[in-house]
Amino acid sequence: MGDELGLLLSKLTTSDHASVTSISLFVALLCGCILVGHLLEEYRWMNESITALIIGVVTGVLILLISRGKSSHLLMFSEDLFFIYLLPPIIFNAGFQVKKKQFFRNFITIMLFGAVGTLICFVIISFGAMQAFRKLDIGIGSFDIGDYLAIGAIFAATDSVCTLQVLNQDETPLLYSLVFGEGVVNDATSVVLFNAIQNFDLTKIDARIALKFFGNFLQLFLTSTLLGVLVGLLSAYIIKRLYIGRHSTDREVAVMMLMAYLSYMLAELFYLSGILTVFFCGIVMSHYTWHNVTESSRVTTKHAFATLSFVAEIFIFLYVGMDALDIEKWRFVSDRPGTSVAISSILLGLVMVGRAAFVFPLSILSNLSTKSPNEIIHFRQQVIIWWAGLMRGAVSMALAYNQFTWKGHSESQGEAIMITSTITVVLVSTMVFGLMTKPLIRLLLPMPRHISSNASSDQNTPKSATVPLLGSGQDSDCGNFGNFSSEPIPPATQLRLLLTIPTHTVHHCWRKFDDTFMRPVFGGRGFVPSVPRSPPDENAPYLQ
Amino acid sequence: MGDELGLLLSKLTTSDHASVTSISLFVALLCGCILVGHLLEEYRWMNESITALIIGVVTGVLILLISRGKSSHLLMFSEDLFFIYLLPPIIFNAGFQVKKKQFFRNFITIMLFGAVGTLICFVIISFGAMQAFRKLDIGIGSFDIGDYLAIGAIFAATDSVCTLQVLNQDETPLLYSLVFGEGVVNDATSVVLFNAIQNFDLTKIDARIALKFFGNFLQLFLTSTLLGVLVGLLSAYIIKRLYIGRHSTDREVAVMMLMAYLSYMLAELFYLSGILTVFFCGIVMSHYTWHNVTESSRVTTKHAFATLSFVAEIFIFLYVGMDALDIEKWRFVSDRPGTSVAISSILLGLVMVGRAAFVFPLSILSNLSTKSPNEIIHFRQQVIIWWAGLMRGAVSMALAYNQFTWKGHSESQGEAIMITSTITVVLVSTMVFGLMTKPLIRLLLPMPRHISSNASSDQNTPKSATVPLLGSGQDSDCGNFGNFSSEPIPPATQLRLLLTIPTHTVHHCWRKFDDTFMRPVFGGRGFVPSVPRSPPDENAPYLQ
Repeated sequence: MGDELGLLLSKLTTSDHASVTSISLFVALLCGCILVGHLLEEYRWMNESITALIIGVVTGVLILLISRGKSSHLLMFSEDLFFIYLLPPIIFNAGFQVKKKQFFRNFITIMLFGAVGTLICFVIISFGAMQAFRKLDIGIGSFDIGDYLAIGAIFAATDSVCTLQVLNQDETPLLYSLVFGEGVVNDATSVVLFNAIQNFDLTKIDARIALKFFGNFLQLFLTSTLLGVLVGLLSAYIIKRLYIGRHSTDREVAVMMLMAYLSYMLAELFYLSGILTVFFCGIVMSHYTWHNVTESSRVTTKHAFATLSFVAEIFIFLYVGMDALDIEKWRFVSDRPGTSVAISSILLGLVMVGRAAFVFPLSILSNLSTKSPNEIIHFRQQVIIWWAGLMRGAVSMALAYNQFTWKGHSESQGEAIMITSTITVVLVSTMVFGLMTKPLIRLLLPMPRHISSNASSDQNTPKSATVPLLGSGQDSDCGNFGNFSSEPIPPATQLRLLLTIPTHTVHHCWRKFDDTFMRPVFGGRGFVPSVPRSPPDENAPYLQ
Repeated sequence: MGDELGLLLSKLTTSDHASVTSISLFVALLCGCILVGHLLEEYRWMNESITALIIGVVTGVLILLISRGKSSHLLMFSEDLFFIYLLPPIIFNAGFQVKKKQFFRNFITIMLFGAVGTLICFVIISFGAMQAFRKLDIGIGSFDIGDYLAIGAIFAATDSVCTLQVLNQDETPLLYSLVFGEGVVNDATSVVLFNAIQNFDLTKIDARIALKFFGNFLQLFLTSTLLGVLVGLLSAYIIKRLYIGRHSTDREVAVMMLMAYLSYMLAELFYLSGILTVFFCGIVMSHYTWHNVTESSRVTTKHAFATLSFVAEIFIFLYVGMDALDIEKWRFVSDRPGTSVAISSILLGLVMVGRAAFVFPLSILSNLSTKSPNEIIHFRQQVIIWWAGLMRGAVSMALAYNQFTWKGHSESQGEAIMITSTITVVLVSTMVFGLMTKPLIRLLLPMPRHISSNASSDQNTPKSATVPLLGSGQDSDCGNFGNFSSEPIPPATQLRLLLTIPTHTVHHCWRKFDDTFMRPVFGGRGFVPSVPRSPPDENAPYLQ
């Protein structure tokens, strides 16, 4: 196994000058994307992802012109580069920066959208594609059921980055946490689904296999989460116990960074979902570990993780943009342009229908079970949630490459068409839908500040950032229903109570448990280091 | 060229599970090194590098045992992994954190040690090795003059990390800045030398070629420095002009990080010395750019760069430790253990002699030209400087692999012996000499706090970190010799004055120039952003 790393490390480095040229060009383009993105910040249609995508496509065209069409592989999309190096920092940062209170308050709704919704979407796209492709006789009849299910998983993976860049966590906390939480759970669900499809023999599906499939899926979900929580707690314990910041703040930052990455790699090692693991590791680290480190480590980790995630995101969009022009694949399908357009259109349509099919029903279900008026998902918000999940991004690309290429090359025309169709769907949905996101949200939420003060209580406004996570005035015993037990219960709200009380009870139990058992061991908010806050760090001398 | 990056990127990722295992193992080992290093912090013999080296060797032995001696390539040392990914953050951070005042005050001495000294050392080792190997008839007579000169360059590259971890920048500022500055200039000199040797036809050396060689060397030095300064200034200008922190502090950090890396890659692209470029880029960024960004970006960059450098350093030592057990090369030389031991001993001896041959004479020369008593290098300090440069590290390894292997494999026994000898020298010098560094410094500088208050003026103590770089009370005109002109000059100090006055004049001119032309354009200390210091950053929501 050491041998493998050696090979890997030696492979990732080629001495020739060309790779230096490529890296320089790529880094320069990344800088360019950030600067252009900054300049276009005020412009109502643009955001960083679309900028990077456009710059990527333009650079691809330029390279194609300079090389006079010779370079057929401008950039080979590598799913492992994506899954091993780029995705972990993005997902970890998502967990690290998420507003935990909002996230867990809406946990059930998020799981409804992210897991159940993704399954519905997956089923609709799979069977829709199967019916449509067969009926239209597009000529990729060699596809078996496994391929169609894979298509379902590929196009069930949303990319809500564009929407999240526009939504404001403080102004519309409910909407933000739903879109955001669904995005993460959706990523995990579709990757887990995709892997399950590849591992199961799907030629003969019966109830037993479907049940086993579902059990497998559930087990993966739970063990992945548990692993993330465990690694996060371990990091909190180590840093609290050893008090590493005493000697060097850099060591704390390094330990946090390495353990976060380790959690992802361990999950991959045990064939779990690295995305879920690293997401929950991020949540636990922000709840415990982050409060155990020195003040400067806190500032550093908060911004360093956000920066890494930011750069990785731009990298992906730039990369997808440049990869869109892999002319080898386009040549493969150039004699049948109609087919490619038809398939792309069908898939885009299925994506829109598949998403509508679960967002609106599940929202209504969620509203039925909600007690407080500020947790109601209004119709306009439902439209935004629907819209937010229409974009397809790098996860879809990576899965498509995994399914339809062999070592970077498509073997049959059908596979080549699926790759070019995926690229088309990603480009069209990100550019066209993405460009319309900002105006659409402005239209649907015309006065965000006003809406937010209606739609959310004070606890959800920015102030909550400074309010302790434990809340206040709700110190009732675990198991006691607190405020609810003293109120007369109108019959109409009994269904709601049945569904809301457990959530609140769980929250209370968690608070008690956290205070009594977790914090003394793992630290967390309010943990005061025994030495001054900013110890003189010998290894990091001050800048002069 | 895009093609190349694609290939590179696809190469750096193999889908198989083995690479996931290796990465997990490696990340876990990195964590382990940091934690063990933390626990051994108080222990007088140890430091992080030696810990990593030992853990690397132990892991190597374990893997060898587990694979039952099968895995001949535990880890192939990849010079490009080292030069493209690990070295840039280390050298950039060195420039970023260096105390510029001390560095430029001792600039001439540092250049004496780093450039002239390294050349002396290179000549002694080259010719010493040539004489010794031929006289002892060790049987690697197939080596030509180019190989011997390469050996000189390989073993002229010092690794002063061990010493710098022990020295304190605040307690012994002169010593620290000399050892530190020499280390960086030495790295650059030996790499430039090595490349020059490979590019020149050295079979027929005459005065003309030697002169051309020297001219080439000087030109490389100057253009590399200039490129670093230019990229640094560009980053300062962009960030000051666009005021990127207005929207997002992460964008500032990303731009600084990417532009620093870009400077290194551009230098490599133009066949310059990336080490020098990124070092001066770091200096310029800490002088201008760092003062133009928001408060949180300052804390983040300071610690994030230090952390990256710290992790890269440990990575290298761990890697070298694991690579030491590449049994393929050891098998190659196993029938002649005597030769390998003899060569290693000769090289270690030459390293010690070669270093002594320039440290003591150049120190005396430097003392002759020094005016102030706190800039005199005492004999004990000379011994420490000599000692600090005895360790050999990853640069030597990388250069040796470049010269004596072809795609990771040695072709002849002579080459294999050179590789194993280099590994032996690196291990012995780092472990044996490294372990003795802390006790030696304690012995030679028994009361560092006392020594420092004798040996340095108040301006050199930690307070200088808060004193503006411009100093105070020395506002005399550029071209006027200031304090000196009003004093009577004793004849004995005329030589000193001849050498010191230009330095001080240069410093004055620089201050004037910096104030009048540079700061208005590029910002720097005292540049006050026009909006509040910590703007609310929408993209990096607060942790709850």
